[in-house]
Amino acid sequence: MSLLVVGSMAYDAVETRAGKVDRALGGSATYFSMAASLFAPPQVVAVVGDDFEASDLDRLSARGVDLSGVTHEKGHTFRWGGRYADDFSTRETLFTELNVFSEFQPHIPDAFRKTRAVFLANIHPALQLDVLEQVEQPDFVALDTMNFWIHGERPALLRVLARTHLLFVNDEEAYDLTGANSLPQAAARILELGPRAVVIKRGEHGSWLFTADRRRFVPAVLLDDVVDPTGAGDTFAGGTLGYLAAQGSFDEDALDQALVVGTLAASFVVEGFSVDALEPRTVADLEARRQRFEKTLAAVTAPIHGPR
Amino acid sequence: MSLLVVGSMAYDAVETRAGKVDRALGGSATYFSMAASLFAPPQVVAVVGDDFEASDLDRLSARGVDLSGVTHEKGHTFRWGGRYADDFSTRETLFTELNVFSEFQPHIPDAFRKTRAVFLANIHPALQLDVLEQVEQPDFVALDTMNFWIHGERPALLRVLARTHLLFVNDEEAYDLTGANSLPQAAARILELGPRAVVIKRGEHGSWLFTADRRRFVPAVLLDDVVDPTGAGDTFAGGTLGYLAAQGSFDEDALDQALVVGTLAASFVVEGFSVDALEPRTVADLEARRQRFEKTLAAVTAPIHGPR
Repeated sequence: MSLLVVGSMAYDAVETRAGKVDRALGGSATYFSMAASLFAPPQVVAVVGDDFEASDLDRLSARGVDLSGVTHEKGHTFRWGGRYADDFSTRETLFTELNVFSEFQPHIPDAFRKTRAVFLANIHPALQLDVLEQVEQPDFVALDTMNFWIHGERPALLRVLARTHLLFVNDEEAYDLTGANSLPQAAARILELGPRAVVIKRGEHGSWLFTADRRRFVPAVLLDDVVDPTGAGDTFAGGTLGYLAAQGSFDEDALDQALVVGTLAASFVVEGFSVDALEPRTVADLEARRQRFEKTLAAVTAPIHGPR
Repeated sequence: MSLLVVGSMAYDAVETRAGKVDRALGGSATYFSMAASLFAPPQVVAVVGDDFEASDLDRLSARGVDLSGVTHEKGHTFRWGGRYADDFSTRETLFTELNVFSEFQPHIPDAFRKTRAVFLANIHPALQLDVLEQVEQPDFVALDTMNFWIHGERPALLRVLARTHLLFVNDEEAYDLTGANSLPQAAARILELGPRAVVIKRGEHGSWLFTADRRRFVPAVLLDDVVDPTGAGDTFAGGTLGYLAAQGSFDEDALDQALVVGTLAASFVVEGFSVDALEPRTVADLEARRQRFEKTLAAVTAPIHGPR
């Protein structure tokens, strides 16, 4: 089943306790595609500058990712720089240079307009809406956003949400969007805005899936060495959507398993800078890690008996 | 199997988004005993003032808790006051009046000295050591502590840790104690200090059990309405230790299940102020909640297959 992603391609400068990189391949569409391509190589709509390396495009096209919707503009590619606290609990943005991304107007090529699934990565809600105007009624629209749009572009965001099937947000964003102060309350309010499912991400702790009649928690994988959390959210979404597109199903049981896949994909990507630690991984690697992951989760299946 | 707890009995003044209480029954030994008594009513060593209500003692003795080690001193009972942020992520201490607790010197009655299991609640490590001097080589010593002792009484704390089987700490305390910046690293260092098991608590997210060859995560129960998180940690420890004492086993499989019990007990106590929401609960209530809890946890058991 076809899968389209609209988002950013970028060069990142990242500093963490594990080291430092510059001009590292990044961007939401990049992370998403690298993960999704394990199951269903997506079609990408994004923009890059004339400094973008052909070899970086090759890393994605080698996995079957369709880059024919990536436009090349004169100027520099979007650049972001950030530094993470040693415990990764916070990060500081060192610079943001939008460059060619500042004029990004997603144009969906004719060949992509019948896509069955769409991931609208974190861009201006007006552009997200514009993408939905260009595609023909997809079966499944998944959305990412951020506090900047929640506060500054709420009306446009609400219009996108009304046409969204699955929203990815973190807990803070969920509270900001709804004014709620508990996850169940935030989820209930989000489901009233349009989505039939919402995934509330809690970083290193895991994520909650809420639908009208389901609450499901997927813990994160406990890692010995985190190198760089950048892109974990987009990788999570990429694993999730790629799996769903490959299954050709968006029902709740498929979504449950897809979130496990997304969780595992994200656990690989944060073990290196950029997409470096994810890129060499196969579905067999995910499955091997799933087996170890399963062993770290307490069985909550045994009945509790009183004192004998 | 006998179980001893040494800790505080207190009157708390608590404000949360759900309301406000004053002179509410609190203290580590109180919460611990209320939870443990579902499985194995403990023996309590603590101190109260002459303002302590007989009716509050009755609430514990009615559950089989042995209060013959509670000394009654002239003066006021330990009082603590605190206010929680609306999202419960932080709390502010409004006042701490140690009162009779400032002179607390735990005296273990002869009848308690052969106890097989001990919970040393969060008190001065020198007092915790003193308790261990008074009891006859128990099978299982569990310990709680806090940053105040980690920073100010490290040598004494290390001496207690050397004689501890199971340490309960939260993630911040684990990092402070060890200088580590990841859970696995912190756990490894703690296991070198004496304990054969450490439970690293992460509040509303859940808790991790680490032993030499096991890592096990128990998520917290997602609650629609939290009223007052005070005492959640001691209740968690009480459920855990009470269950282990009732089983008469401290092996890793028993510990796994015990932590589920502790998690469920804590999920009840935070639904009310003080111990009010836990007190009426039975083992059957815990089991009913466990069954619903189980349904909220994603199955990580299904193999991941690549695209078809």
